[in-house]
Amino acid sequence: MPQNRRFLLQRRPDGEPVPEDFELVTEATPELADGQFLIRNHYASLDPAIRGWMDAEGNYMPPIPLGDPVRASTIGVVEESRAEGFEKGQWVMGLHALEDFSLSQAGGFTQPIDPSLVPSVTNYLSIFGAVGMTAYFGFLEVCEPKEGDTVLVTGAAGAVGSLVGQLAKIKGCRAIGIAGGPEKCAKLTEKYGFDTAIDYKGKSEADLTREIAAAAPDGVDVIFENVGGIILDAGLMNLNLHARVGLCGMISEYNTEPRGVRNLWQLIVKRAQIRGLLVADYVERFGEGAAQMGQWAAEGRLVIEEQVDEGLENTYASFMRLFAGTNQGKMILKIA
Amino acid sequence: MPQNRRFLLQRRPDGEPVPEDFELVTEATPELADGQFLIRNHYASLDPAIRGWMDAEGNYMPPIPLGDPVRASTIGVVEESRAEGFEKGQWVMGLHALEDFSLSQAGGFTQPIDPSLVPSVTNYLSIFGAVGMTAYFGFLEVCEPKEGDTVLVTGAAGAVGSLVGQLAKIKGCRAIGIAGGPEKCAKLTEKYGFDTAIDYKGKSEADLTREIAAAAPDGVDVIFENVGGIILDAGLMNLNLHARVGLCGMISEYNTEPRGVRNLWQLIVKRAQIRGLLVADYVERFGEGAAQMGQWAAEGRLVIEEQVDEGLENTYASFMRLFAGTNQGKMILKIA
Repeated sequence: MPQNRRFLLQRRPDGEPVPEDFELVTEATPELADGQFLIRNHYASLDPAIRGWMDAEGNYMPPIPLGDPVRASTIGVVEESRAEGFEKGQWVMGLHALEDFSLSQAGGFTQPIDPSLVPSVTNYLSIFGAVGMTAYFGFLEVCEPKEGDTVLVTGAAGAVGSLVGQLAKIKGCRAIGIAGGPEKCAKLTEKYGFDTAIDYKGKSEADLTREIAAAAPDGVDVIFENVGGIILDAGLMNLNLHARVGLCGMISEYNTEPRGVRNLWQLIVKRAQIRGLLVADYVERFGEGAAQMGQWAAEGRLVIEEQVDEGLENTYASFMRLFAGTNQGKMILKIA
Repeated sequence: MPQNRRFLLQRRPDGEPVPEDFELVTEATPELADGQFLIRNHYASLDPAIRGWMDAEGNYMPPIPLGDPVRASTIGVVEESRAEGFEKGQWVMGLHALEDFSLSQAGGFTQPIDPSLVPSVTNYLSIFGAVGMTAYFGFLEVCEPKEGDTVLVTGAAGAVGSLVGQLAKIKGCRAIGIAGGPEKCAKLTEKYGFDTAIDYKGKSEADLTREIAAAAPDGVDVIFENVGGIILDAGLMNLNLHARVGLCGMISEYNTEPRGVRNLWQLIVKRAQIRGLLVADYVERFGEGAAQMGQWAAEGRLVIEEQVDEGLENTYASFMRLFAGTNQGKMILKIA
C-alpha cells in the first residue's frame, strides 16, 4: 500500500495559527475493518470554519483531537472497500481530513458523487457543496429576501459571499458588497454583478457606516454577514424596519479576542433580527438546492470561482489565505 | 390659572445623567387653541427608554429638544378642553411630559381611561401600560415560548422582567431570573414565582455562564433580555438549538460606551435568533393584551408591584433609581 501523508493538529492555536501548530507526517495507510472503505482524497475544501474546530471548546462540531489530522470536506475515489454500496473507483464526498487517504464507513456522511454531472469535480466543494448550499439556504431561507430589497453582503468576494450577491440579483434585489481592496471590489461589480462595492480597508466604523448609507440611501433590508466586528456594526446602523441579518460567520474574530458587537440596540430601534445559520441544518434539502444552483449556473447566471492550490505540503499557507483575504474564490487544496 | 412646574432637559447627558442636565422651572400654564385640551398630570411613568430620548441621535423616537420638558407617559385629568371627545374631569393617558400640565389634542396618542376598571389608576402605567404590554407582546409574540421551555429573564426584578417571569410560569415554562442583590433575588422566587434566581452582583461573565448552566442544565430556550453586556454574553453561552432571544433593552449600556456583545457566534452554533422588540408595534392590539393581563391579575396569577415616588422635585433621583437598580417594581412618579 502507498504511504499516507497526514496534516496533523499538534497544538491548539493561540489566536492566529502558526506553522508549528501543525505537522505533516507520513504513516502507513490504515487497515480496513468490515463495513469500512478507504478514500484516496483528491481535493479538500479549506474553510474558515475549520479554525473553530481547532479550539478546545469546539463549536457546532467537536474539537479536532490533538494529534489527529485536520478535519475538512474532501472529494476522492474509493481505493479499497469492505462496505456495501461503496465500490473501488467510485467518487465520493464527505467530511474527512487533510490527508492522502481517509477511512470512512457506510451509513456516515460520505456520499457518492457523479463527476459527469458537473463541469469540474471540484464544483462539489464549491457551488454544489457546503459553500453553495450555505449561500442558497442561508440567503433564501434565513434572510427571506423580497424583490426590491437592498441586500448587504460582507466578505462579498469570498466563496459564500460572491454567490449570495449573485443570488440577490437573481431574486431582483439590489446587492451591495463589502470586500478588501480595489481589486476585489472591481471583481464584485464586474464579475459577480453587485450594484455597488465598498472597500473596507483602512476605514473606521464611522467611515463604513457613511459609505453603506451612501450606497443604500433607502436603508438595508438584508445583511448576509460573514465578517463581524466594525463591519457588522456599520451594517447595523443602516438597517431598515424589520430587517433580517443572516449570521453566517464572523471571520474577523476567529483568530483574535472578539471586539464585540456594539450596535445591537439597533435591533430594538428597527425591530430587526439576527439569525445564525448553519448549512448542516439543510442537508436533507441539498438535492433541491443543488438542482436549482446547477440550473442557474447552466443558464450563465452564476459565476463560480475556485482557487485550487496544490499539495498537502502547502496546506498551512493555503489555509491562511482565508484570513489574509488573499484567496480568489473558493479555496480548494489539490491533494492528488 | 395655576402655575406649571416643568422638568426641562437643559443639556444632553454625557454618559450618566447629572442633576445639572435638568432644570425644574415654573411657567404659566399654556393657552388652549381650538382642538386642544389641557391635562393635569397625576402620575408619570419613569422608564429606562427615556434616557435614549435625551441623546442627540434619538432612537425610535426623535430626541427631546433641549429646553423642552422630559417626555414621559403620564396619566391625568382633563383640566380644560377645546377638543371634542375630551371633557373636563375625564381621566386620560398618553405620551406627555414631566410637568404639572400638558397640552394635548384630539387625534393624538392621548386616550381616555377608566379608573373604575382597575384596582389603582397607576396600573395604567404598569400592567395595562407600556410595561405590561411590553411583557405581554414581547414575550408571547417575539420569544414564542412553548410549554416546558426554560426561560431566562434578565433585569428580572424590574417592571417588565418581573411580569415576563410570571407570564413564563403561566405558560408552563421554567423561569430563571437574573437580578442584583439577595433582596431582589429572594423576591424573584418568593413573590414572582421564578424557579431560580441568580444574583449578578460581583460576578464575572464566566461566573454567570456557570451559574446559568447550573440553573438550566438542559439549556435555555428563551432569553428575555433587558440588560446586555456580560449578562447577555453569559446567556448566549447557554442557548439551546433554535433558541429565541427577545431584545427588549440593554440598560447596562445606556449611560456608557457599549462594551459589545462578544458571544454572538453562539447564534451560529445554535442556529438561534435575536429579535428586537418595541411595544409601539402592538398598539392596535393593546386591548387584547390588557384584557388578558387583567384577567390573570384578577385570578391572582400576576403580582403587580409599583414604586410610587412623590413630587416633580424628586424626578432626577427617582429616574436614576432605574439605573442603580434600587427601585422596587414599576417606577412611577406622583405629580399631584
